[in-house]
Amino acid sequence: MKYIIIGAVAGGASTAARLRRLDEHSEIIMFEKGEHVSYANCGLPYYIGNVIKERNKLLIQTAASFKERFNIDVRTMTEVINIDPKLKTITALNHITGNKYVENYDKLVLSPGAEPLRPPLAGINNTGIFTLRNVNDTDHIKDFIKQKEAKKAVIIGAGFIGLEMAENLFDLGMEVSIIEMGNQILAPLDYPMAAIAQQHIRYKGVQLLLNSAVTAFEKNNNSIKVLLKNGDTLDADIVILSIGVKPDTRLVTNSGLKIGDVKGIWVNEYLQTSDPDIYAVGDAIEFANPITNQSMNTYLAGPANKQGRICANNIVLGNVQKYHGAINTAIVKVFDMIIATAGMASKHITKANIKHIVSTIPGGSHAGYYPGAEQMNIQIVFSPENGQLLGAQVAGYKGVDKRIDILSSIIQNKGTVYDLSEFEHAYAPPYSSAKDPVNMSGFVAENILQDRLRIFYWDQFSQISDDDILLDVRSETEFNAGAIPNAINIPIDNLRDRMTELDLNKNIYTYCQAGLRGYLAQRILRQNNYKSVLNLSGGYQLWETCTKEMETSQEAVLL
Amino acid sequence: MKYIIIGAVAGGASTAARLRRLDEHSEIIMFEKGEHVSYANCGLPYYIGNVIKERNKLLIQTAASFKERFNIDVRTMTEVINIDPKLKTITALNHITGNKYVENYDKLVLSPGAEPLRPPLAGINNTGIFTLRNVNDTDHIKDFIKQKEAKKAVIIGAGFIGLEMAENLFDLGMEVSIIEMGNQILAPLDYPMAAIAQQHIRYKGVQLLLNSAVTAFEKNNNSIKVLLKNGDTLDADIVILSIGVKPDTRLVTNSGLKIGDVKGIWVNEYLQTSDPDIYAVGDAIEFANPITNQSMNTYLAGPANKQGRICANNIVLGNVQKYHGAINTAIVKVFDMIIATAGMASKHITKANIKHIVSTIPGGSHAGYYPGAEQMNIQIVFSPENGQLLGAQVAGYKGVDKRIDILSSIIQNKGTVYDLSEFEHAYAPPYSSAKDPVNMSGFVAENILQDRLRIFYWDQFSQISDDDILLDVRSETEFNAGAIPNAINIPIDNLRDRMTELDLNKNIYTYCQAGLRGYLAQRILRQNNYKSVLNLSGGYQLWETCTKEMETSQEAVLL
Repeated sequence: MKYIIIGAVAGGASTAARLRRLDEHSEIIMFEKGEHVSYANCGLPYYIGNVIKERNKLLIQTAASFKERFNIDVRTMTEVINIDPKLKTITALNHITGNKYVENYDKLVLSPGAEPLRPPLAGINNTGIFTLRNVNDTDHIKDFIKQKEAKKAVIIGAGFIGLEMAENLFDLGMEVSIIEMGNQILAPLDYPMAAIAQQHIRYKGVQLLLNSAVTAFEKNNNSIKVLLKNGDTLDADIVILSIGVKPDTRLVTNSGLKIGDVKGIWVNEYLQTSDPDIYAVGDAIEFANPITNQSMNTYLAGPANKQGRICANNIVLGNVQKYHGAINTAIVKVFDMIIATAGMASKHITKANIKHIVSTIPGGSHAGYYPGAEQMNIQIVFSPENGQLLGAQVAGYKGVDKRIDILSSIIQNKGTVYDLSEFEHAYAPPYSSAKDPVNMSGFVAENILQDRLRIFYWDQFSQISDDDILLDVRSETEFNAGAIPNAINIPIDNLRDRMTELDLNKNIYTYCQAGLRGYLAQRILRQNNYKSVLNLSGGYQLWETCTKEMETSQEAVLL
Repeated sequence: MKYIIIGAVAGGASTAARLRRLDEHSEIIMFEKGEHVSYANCGLPYYIGNVIKERNKLLIQTAASFKERFNIDVRTMTEVINIDPKLKTITALNHITGNKYVENYDKLVLSPGAEPLRPPLAGINNTGIFTLRNVNDTDHIKDFIKQKEAKKAVIIGAGFIGLEMAENLFDLGMEVSIIEMGNQILAPLDYPMAAIAQQHIRYKGVQLLLNSAVTAFEKNNNSIKVLLKNGDTLDADIVILSIGVKPDTRLVTNSGLKIGDVKGIWVNEYLQTSDPDIYAVGDAIEFANPITNQSMNTYLAGPANKQGRICANNIVLGNVQKYHGAINTAIVKVFDMIIATAGMASKHITKANIKHIVSTIPGGSHAGYYPGAEQMNIQIVFSPENGQLLGAQVAGYKGVDKRIDILSSIIQNKGTVYDLSEFEHAYAPPYSSAKDPVNMSGFVAENILQDRLRIFYWDQFSQISDDDILLDVRSETEFNAGAIPNAINIPIDNLRDRMTELDLNKNIYTYCQAGLRGYLAQRILRQNNYKSVLNLSGGYQLWETCTKEMETSQEAVLL
């Protein structure tokens, strides 16, 4: 057998290595149009930021090491410019020699990846404006910063890469501004979780401009002038464009292979394209979202690597293993914080017309009585019908990575909020609490499903009329330090005695700092014949963060 | 309704609070024979070690706070000395006033906990010999250390509490010895994972005596002489007895309630005892192990807290929620290391006569190219029939708590090693690798199940005859720095060229540092007609740790 693989990073490299382990005697050729193979994409921002100090740490494998260890013929700087599925050949172009040649294959694997979006803005090709996708981009950015002694950076697009670049350039001592068209950073997340991170970014001293669009770039002496739609301008020594990527299907469209609904390479559940001898993996493919069944792309290293393994199994052993899709579990370091997501955001489920409930709770990274515990917020999204967990997001400091992985595992297994409650975590004071925040999120969701807890959200205050009661059940000290406008204060521990102060016929909206005391208040009131009592999900804390962030970004637009 | 709860820590306190949330108007009385309620048991060793500095941090709730917030009548220093299930009454004894009185109940909840084992050794009641179970024990130990200016500690029993005490006393500056009857520390774990921790404990400078039994204690001027079975003696200023606990069922046995197979209070799946008006939770109960269906006890805070919630639901709402048992997920900080377990150990599955396969792999806490990655070892135990994950153990540094929680979630959901492979983790370089160690453990297990990987273990070297080939496929440098006796060296990258040096008719045992290169060697050899090739699970590293630990503890016995 002769296997050809196009693209030698994540998915392609994984496929190649697995093919060899399954089939020692076949011929395997892997083409890579770039200079480097199987490098650490996800490490690139950290190498620019000098967190990763040695460049060769990024280069996990080389063409030589693939040859030595796996007997794989890796051809770098060689672009496949044509595929002929009928003849089962590809045409390769060696960019160094200019030599063009044809290779035949028995099975072909496509792993072309994704390409960064570059909108057709005036001046976008000026010096100093970069996208970051591979080692060469990284080298160019690093060299440019050094030579230019860059002091001011503008990041366009506040996705994962944009935020990682913002942090790394900031840590190099630069003045950093982030420009984002949307009304929040991190588009895959729901607003409240993004707002928590936004507050942290501003606190760190990075300028964050939301609802802001770039219209053009101009040369300005030795620097770049970034023009915004609202007329403002920003000066930059370096600009990083990180507005997103799209599947790189340029090669595929010409070869007659099927392209799917969301412009990725169409593959079946065995990762086989519309041609049975051609498989595809990685950022360029699309597949069914396991939650909605709608087509989706994913641009994550984890799924690409797993696809590589499955693809090789299917090629050698004959379509033995189905790919079950990805739930887009992702995580990003944002300065001192960690922000993570798995499954679907509420806003996307809403678009898919799936009924769901959102609940947010705060929790500690570990037992509060053991030193060093840090707070996180867990938002879960679940089905009101059967409690199935559809999505989860976590924003906080240490321990966020652990919680999102547990939640991801449960979403992936089509588990419910009852599984969150029953989840048996490993507890010792340095690592968790007797009831882990994951358990707590399940307990709260159960209470909601069983109508023991009725909630409202930070963005629903406009529903509260002057005739309703907004009841703050925190302590007097907490209340006096800052409360929601128009709230009255009865501390939870006094509520049983002072309940008569509340009119039985009025709608009551309770809240506390985090949600627990408000829930207790609701239990007391509802069992004392108060019919309409709702408790604020996420408590005062989340309300304050979201409301302030909303005001800040609206002010910026109005300025 | 009138609810009485006996025991006001973990399970009892959780039940009481949940009862109130479900039922605002009932009467709830909670009896506690000790002085404190709902305190942080698991924090006690860390308060002794001054890691937790304020005593009041241990006291999560007080009788007063239970009254204020939950309207629960908590009676401390009051022991329930009799239960009359027929009359539905209990008899209480107030240890302060000496007053004895009867209370009736509609529903009774038992949460008496476990009591530390104290073997009937000569001198065991001498001053300076302590067990650690509650806040009073903690105060006594702390006071004793201070007054005595204790310098030498002997810990008897190397379980979770023993090791936590060893670390905390060591960090106070004491000379610490641990005496353990078994041939390893941490009895719930399999030998290799325990051996890794043992090596670390010795490296830290703690004396660890395995296979060692205490026969008596003697007064020796101002200190304690600990006599061992082999004739040795140890001097100690303080002795901590941590050889285990047993369910405290003294009260229950007299009341005619059913005691189960492993001497815990028998409960049905609704946590109801043999009397339908009496429920029980926490360390004192027994229930069916979800993996073996055999009766088991568990002495962990997590299950106790979850049981409390379920118990209250069942009491108020009428047996609506089944308790699904616990898989004994547990974790312990051992100096700089973290050791964790979930599900069953291989040795216990062997006893239960369940067929299983063990596989151990090393992995990094996060991507090796990002600074600060630390190594861990993951051992999984799974069914050869359907791949069901039966148990997992992790020994390492940071990130161990995350991996055991993921593994616990999968074991609890009766998942398989295929779920480990497909598990979609949150990957960014500071938190994981593109393939998480959990994924890797699944990949390896799949390879074993599909006969692509055949393994042998560190304790099976006696099976290798002089006629077999022990093949080290690491680099020459690694080989020369230390190898397994009688091994020959062909580095993996030379194996294809030098294969002819190996006799086709011989049994070949391959190994490398960690397991991956040995697996590749096996793939190459088996596809070149070498019929009998086995690879060492866990690699040279695990072999070295286990072998050295075994020698060290045997030497100690022979001395």
